[in-house]
Amino acid sequence: MTRYQHLANLLAQRIEQGFYREGEKLPSVRRLSQEHGVSISTVQQSYQLLEQQRLITAQPRSGYFVAPQQLQAPVPQMSRPIQRPVEITQWEQVLSMLNVRDDKDVITFGGGSPDMEQPGLKPLWREFSKVIRHDSGDILKYDALTGQRELREQIARLMLGAGSMVTADDVVITSGCHNALSLALLAVCEPGDIIAVESPTYYGTMQLLRGLGFKAIEIPTDPVNGISVEALELALEQWPVKGVILVPNCNNPLGFIMPDKRKRAVLALAQSHDIVIFEDDIYGDLATDYPRPQTIHSMDIDGRVMLCSSFTKTIAPGLRIGWIIPGRNYDRLLQKKYAVSGTNVPSTQMAVSAFIREGYYHRHVRRMRQIYQRNMEIYTGWLREYFPCGICVTRPKGGFMLWVELPAQVDMVCVSRQLCRLKIHVAPGSLFSASGKYRNCLRINCALPPIEKHRQVMVKLGEAVKMAME
Amino acid sequence: MTRYQHLANLLAQRIEQGFYREGEKLPSVRRLSQEHGVSISTVQQSYQLLEQQRLITAQPRSGYFVAPQQLQAPVPQMSRPIQRPVEITQWEQVLSMLNVRDDKDVITFGGGSPDMEQPGLKPLWREFSKVIRHDSGDILKYDALTGQRELREQIARLMLGAGSMVTADDVVITSGCHNALSLALLAVCEPGDIIAVESPTYYGTMQLLRGLGFKAIEIPTDPVNGISVEALELALEQWPVKGVILVPNCNNPLGFIMPDKRKRAVLALAQSHDIVIFEDDIYGDLATDYPRPQTIHSMDIDGRVMLCSSFTKTIAPGLRIGWIIPGRNYDRLLQKKYAVSGTNVPSTQMAVSAFIREGYYHRHVRRMRQIYQRNMEIYTGWLREYFPCGICVTRPKGGFMLWVELPAQVDMVCVSRQLCRLKIHVAPGSLFSASGKYRNCLRINCALPPIEKHRQVMVKLGEAVKMAME
Repeated sequence: MTRYQHLANLLAQRIEQGFYREGEKLPSVRRLSQEHGVSISTVQQSYQLLEQQRLITAQPRSGYFVAPQQLQAPVPQMSRPIQRPVEITQWEQVLSMLNVRDDKDVITFGGGSPDMEQPGLKPLWREFSKVIRHDSGDILKYDALTGQRELREQIARLMLGAGSMVTADDVVITSGCHNALSLALLAVCEPGDIIAVESPTYYGTMQLLRGLGFKAIEIPTDPVNGISVEALELALEQWPVKGVILVPNCNNPLGFIMPDKRKRAVLALAQSHDIVIFEDDIYGDLATDYPRPQTIHSMDIDGRVMLCSSFTKTIAPGLRIGWIIPGRNYDRLLQKKYAVSGTNVPSTQMAVSAFIREGYYHRHVRRMRQIYQRNMEIYTGWLREYFPCGICVTRPKGGFMLWVELPAQVDMVCVSRQLCRLKIHVAPGSLFSASGKYRNCLRINCALPPIEKHRQVMVKLGEAVKMAME
Repeated sequence: MTRYQHLANLLAQRIEQGFYREGEKLPSVRRLSQEHGVSISTVQQSYQLLEQQRLITAQPRSGYFVAPQQLQAPVPQMSRPIQRPVEITQWEQVLSMLNVRDDKDVITFGGGSPDMEQPGLKPLWREFSKVIRHDSGDILKYDALTGQRELREQIARLMLGAGSMVTADDVVITSGCHNALSLALLAVCEPGDIIAVESPTYYGTMQLLRGLGFKAIEIPTDPVNGISVEALELALEQWPVKGVILVPNCNNPLGFIMPDKRKRAVLALAQSHDIVIFEDDIYGDLATDYPRPQTIHSMDIDGRVMLCSSFTKTIAPGLRIGWIIPGRNYDRLLQKKYAVSGTNVPSTQMAVSAFIREGYYHRHVRRMRQIYQRNMEIYTGWLREYFPCGICVTRPKGGFMLWVELPAQVDMVCVSRQLCRLKIHVAPGSLFSASGKYRNCLRINCALPPIEKHRQVMVKLGEAVKMAME
């Protein structure tokens, strides 16, 4: 954390604790600079940050004051999806969203791309260029079916940080986390099988289930603590569920981290009903707090958790490097990989290997965690300011997604169609449900930097939502 | 074609036509040099080439003579597989073969890698490096689901050369031809479906069918003209076959090019029985004769042919760039691609795009066609010399694979196990059948240059086969 962020956090804490009251004047820049032994400009940066977060206001020629206390927007309630297996639809909507992604004029708040403009990624070009210059033979050859060994070793070390004790031989490289998840499902399920999912669930996962011919059963999920163990148990008793897909760490779209106790409870349930847990850890390394949260996989004793992840969110999607730790289904997974996907591109794997080896990965991720956290705070402030009262907003513990629940009468499917004409793209909540829920919700990608252009988009978005309420 | 190859071909023709008889002395180097207006060293190179092909022999201090005429090894007969749908096995054997590929000490005549040591590939590094230096933003982003537009445009132009009239919008990029074929099958078939295949069929395709839960019905196939239309018709009448996988151009492993008439007959049959044709054109651009052969897809009028191909054999496997032209199943294919594979790596696509744009692709492929043709002639000569009498060898019209049929008592599965200990790896024929046929056959990858080291492998291989006959 930089100095000014540190100082801003300290001041924010004092405001929250009531040390400085609403409307009260804050210490002068000069005084704070002396008190904390930091430069004038550092203090100014801190105050600017707090201003962006709407915690303080600047009054010309008199100084900074604690802003009128706005109540924080409440967190959405536990979801209440229809609890029976359903066919997934809405492929056309997702397809048109994918096509929007390719239009460079559209501002895409609906997608899942990370911020790739940060200087922390610069060394990646250098390492990639080196790979092409020096390893010219290997980049042309067939990759090993399991992927490049060095990279698997590095991934095994990374996973230790999440509590998962694995070696390179337990890891299989895939073309992103999405491909890891599809191979995992193909390895242990048959078309027509029922898979339990958190509700809401990332639309890519929904369409993956649809494309492979599975049915989804949506389980009530709490935006703070994750999937309801009771509801999951009920579903397992009622239906022949084959497995459950979970994003327990920095959930997409809700942002929660499941408490360890609940992780253990879900695992115990999976054991007693003999189902597979498909754990998606793609955002796990982007948890705000250090050390990062543990995987359910780390608590697994009989190899039933198939852990899927990738560098798509932590480095970049264009690398197409994901991995799976398939546990006791290793052989079946490998066979499916050969049948469906074949081998991967060696060159991007070698570039990422070098990026990790030289220490750039950890540095970059550490920085991105702070940036995303700050972005989400700023976007939350904007939502409070530009959106109607009565909205609920998640308080993510990592990743870079906000989930917003609007008043019941707002139909985000309609609103998002209007916004398309303004070249603004958002993801309506309905895409995150197989049973047509969450039409009054939306997901916002806060990896887009909180610059003036994007603030204006939030203003327009707020106006469109208000219009929809009339 | 270089000068010396041209001259060698001319002389070879004259020998075949009986212009020079067996045992007859050939013109001196000096005289040929004067006659054809080429340098002494060019003539010497021509003579060396003919010597390698066993058409002539050098006698110290007297000159070159026409070699005793060896009868060409006959071509194998039409295959006679069991004509009922069968489950495919042998995954373990294929897996151990894939693992061998990663062992750098093993000489792998059993794999499918092209020759990647040729200077024609040099510009690829240059273009790849440029892509990374100049297009730094795009290589990190998510690719379009259909793949990079420029590359699709270039592929559409390439396919025109094969008679397939398509545009960029008809093409979907995949991760190699194998992935194209698996997506094609997933798009139009259900697990348990019966798929007809040529017999023998490339083991990768066999395992793909197995991994996806399909049954294979092997159709008798002629090593000169391709699949038997009559046998295919019989199978279609007897069984609920969903589609047929064909490699009509430079077939793997048999090397034939199906005559256009037969291509039309198979297509008519597919139409009358309403089945899909999965056409694998991966070796099509490597046909010896120019212009290259037409695809079945080029004759298709109702979009039932799903054309799959890649740059794996013409450029390099490590790029992982294939494509599919899915015809009327375009939408289903795209949905399956999203569900199973997701998007591809942009950087390798951009590098290949540049490689084609600058004219390097055509130059490289033109050269490789000659090299592979020459290699196969030399290997055929070695087979004649070092293997027992009574073998049959295919006469491929392109690609770089030879299929060898040995006397019935030879069990290549056993022989290949012995060869493993000598760090020599060959593909026993049984892998190319779902019903345990072709144990007395093997496929040889002639992309490995015919250097002394590889000649010695052929000597050892011949000895092992002779041993197995005793």
